[in-house]
Amino acid sequence: MDEASTKPAAIEFWYEFASPYSYVAAGRIEGLAAEERLGIDWRPFLLGPIFKTRTNDPSPFQNPSPAQRRYRWRDVQRLCAASGLPLRMPPAYPRNGLLAARVALIAIDEGWGPAFTRAAFHANFAEDRDIAAPAVIGALVAALRHDAAAVLDRAASPANKERLKASGEAAIRRSIFGAPSFLVGDELFWGNDRLEQAIAWARAPLDLSPLTSSG
Amino acid sequence: MDEASTKPAAIEFWYEFASPYSYVAAGRIEGLAAEERLGIDWRPFLLGPIFKTRTNDPSPFQNPSPAQRRYRWRDVQRLCAASGLPLRMPPAYPRNGLLAARVALIAIDEGWGPAFTRAAFHANFAEDRDIAAPAVIGALVAALRHDAAAVLDRAASPANKERLKASGEAAIRRSIFGAPSFLVGDELFWGNDRLEQAIAWARAPLDLSPLTSSG
Repeated sequence: MDEASTKPAAIEFWYEFASPYSYVAAGRIEGLAAEERLGIDWRPFLLGPIFKTRTNDPSPFQNPSPAQRRYRWRDVQRLCAASGLPLRMPPAYPRNGLLAARVALIAIDEGWGPAFTRAAFHANFAEDRDIAAPAVIGALVAALRHDAAAVLDRAASPANKERLKASGEAAIRRSIFGAPSFLVGDELFWGNDRLEQAIAWARAPLDLSPLTSSG
Repeated sequence: MDEASTKPAAIEFWYEFASPYSYVAAGRIEGLAAEERLGIDWRPFLLGPIFKTRTNDPSPFQNPSPAQRRYRWRDVQRLCAASGLPLRMPPAYPRNGLLAARVALIAIDEGWGPAFTRAAFHANFAEDRDIAAPAVIGALVAALRHDAAAVLDRAASPANKERLKASGEAAIRRSIFGAPSFLVGDELFWGNDRLEQAIAWARAPLDLSPLTSSG
């Protein structure tokens, strides 16, 4: 096999619309992947069902340490400032990403997934709009020149609901426990701050054998 | 005031000897700080008392999600491989960093803090030695050409015990909730993956005013 055929064709980008670090990653991944001519496999999913499986800390979004909660937003501010991404602190947090994820699946099918993903993240984190509201999501769809009513209808179909559920189950099977996550083949990377590492791995995996053999 | 007098003279490096990400940061910080001619203020401390204040998840070291626990070590392996740091997976985790932290305070006072810090991290994570054992720490001290018995004695003095406790209280006052943490003035950065950002902040803080004014 030549090099091209062994190299993963794409990086899987697993994101949750409620997650500010997913927003930052969504704002960075296209430029970084393009530099490496790496395709992006867009995978919207929900963290809720995964967090429910955690016995001791089912709500990391609402981490109870005030210090850590304050830190998180400061950290997100710094990351946005460094990447030139707009940010308007949402008073409601986390927002429910269910509707946006369902619509994203439809949009991905129809080839406008990245544009919708950017628009929904921007609405949530740059404009402080409620992405759980059909009117808000419908307006984003219409702005992308698609039929909002028809898309919302398809998003609410039993088949599409089932598909998002199956996607969440696939995430658990593949050991995903947070968002954003990146998969290059079966190699998992968690967090916006691992994006560069995931892309480097797609180009050339690190040799971990000296470490793994000693443990 | 000229630029030099307003620029922080040092980055505070808060580390816990039980923490693998502190090990990775300790292996990287000296080179990165030297490039910026930035001093390092070494601050060994214990996470235990901080974790005890967390009501819902007092033991993040032993995170109960098997997927996340597996991921953590794979992540640490990749970080070590990328930085050329040796790693031998400790079967006992986390090891108790209390004794090492007490000795580190003495070593810092006497000017051999960085060398001892490197040695203790290396023993724990590259050699899988039990850093809670006085014999192990004593051997590290002796290898650095200090009187092991005398140092262990000073480390166990009431004044030094009190000092480590006060350091942990200072950490909480300054909003530290994990390790490694970096402070540049009062600006907090959490995690090995924020080290470069902390150093960049010491050189020139990001302008966050466009973001903070809109929230």
